[in-house]
Amino acid sequence: MRVDVISNVNEARSDDFIHKTVVVIDVLRATSAIVTGLEHGCTGIVPVETVSQARALKQSDDLLAGERFCKKIAGFDLGNSPLEYRTPDIAGKRMIMTTTNGTRVIQKVQKGAHILAGSVLNAECCARSALHFRKDIVLVCAGTQDDFALEDGLCAGLLVDELQKRMEAPLALNDSGMAMLAAYRHRADDLQGAMAACSSGMKLSKLGFERDIAFCSQLNLYDTVPLLQNQTLVPMRF
Amino acid sequence: MRVDVISNVNEARSDDFIHKTVVVIDVLRATSAIVTGLEHGCTGIVPVETVSQARALKQSDDLLAGERFCKKIAGFDLGNSPLEYRTPDIAGKRMIMTTTNGTRVIQKVQKGAHILAGSVLNAECCARSALHFRKDIVLVCAGTQDDFALEDGLCAGLLVDELQKRMEAPLALNDSGMAMLAAYRHRADDLQGAMAACSSGMKLSKLGFERDIAFCSQLNLYDTVPLLQNQTLVPMRF
Repeated sequence: MRVDVISNVNEARSDDFIHKTVVVIDVLRATSAIVTGLEHGCTGIVPVETVSQARALKQSDDLLAGERFCKKIAGFDLGNSPLEYRTPDIAGKRMIMTTTNGTRVIQKVQKGAHILAGSVLNAECCARSALHFRKDIVLVCAGTQDDFALEDGLCAGLLVDELQKRMEAPLALNDSGMAMLAAYRHRADDLQGAMAACSSGMKLSKLGFERDIAFCSQLNLYDTVPLLQNQTLVPMRF
Repeated sequence: MRVDVISNVNEARSDDFIHKTVVVIDVLRATSAIVTGLEHGCTGIVPVETVSQARALKQSDDLLAGERFCKKIAGFDLGNSPLEYRTPDIAGKRMIMTTTNGTRVIQKVQKGAHILAGSVLNAECCARSALHFRKDIVLVCAGTQDDFALEDGLCAGLLVDELQKRMEAPLALNDSGMAMLAAYRHRADDLQGAMAACSSGMKLSKLGFERDIAFCSQLNLYDTVPLLQNQTLVPMRF
């Protein structure tokens, strides 16, 4: 089986995803928040690129969620901190979400045969779910703007590690996959430290979101895997 | 001190290099060959982008070197295998060189204050030389065409490791720098294995250049550091 890591979404061409199972990774914080929201009973999350698209799509019972410059958008119900998503208020509701990078990536990979959302929180279950489709896999790191983000690369390495554990034959990895697997294995004992020291981690700390970093670095806390169906991320059922 | 790793030259803007000490890395095989050539008495290596530029620049005593599709260019004296450069025939001569990626990168980083060539062969000495200029450092991985190349990333991680050993305070690294340092440290005991398994390594093996991989993975074999002066790479003298 072939597993490619794309370390920054800008390097991707949308045709790279045809016939593939795609896992989108935006650890700080979009995919961590999405996993947390679905785990807490949100029925589905609709990722959109712009704030105006989010407002236009909203129906009476929907929640609006998202950030710009790491902060909650004015008038929205929720920001982008997964800690906010751990509330019974979201159970049974649909959420419309826009974030700077995460939702942009989901748009970019639309040609994928299956599109999942991965994070450290759901790594083990995400790897198992990706294998379920029996197709080659592409792990796509959202990154921040034009740059590689360490937390996404480490999560990609973690997912490669989880995929490899489940396969007898060695995975065929691209060079980024090999690099991220090695980097993850070197930092596996201190993911939280690595995530706090990198660019997004330092930025979030400055803005008072240190607890988000600790939360998002918890390994396999949840069993929920978001799957894109009809432009909506819903919990994947086997 | 700030050290940034650019994991693929396509991600770089030429203004990123202004006022910086730049180390260009193309382990398989341009910078390894350049280091080997200067170590064996070549007086200077002029990197050019095209075959016709190389032919136009050549004066009677010069050697022509370079590759296209990993193979020696018709009519040239040398290809791109560092093993060919270990000959007394090159001593005292100037070389005009064109390679697919390595020389292109050197053109791209022209705005750097100081431009060095790094490889596994000269890592320790290259790190020491880069610090000599007392400027922030950018390590630029050539990669292959549009893609990240593992061997260049591991060499960048090795150079970060060598730089850090010589500094009391922790280096300020970008996220790619942190990732490549971690990947290098995880694979440090088997650089040759990593370089043989990655995309460039497998391609070179198929073409019969396995020995180049073993040669290029030798740590600190040489003390020569190529420095760009007047569009020519010459051995750096302190």
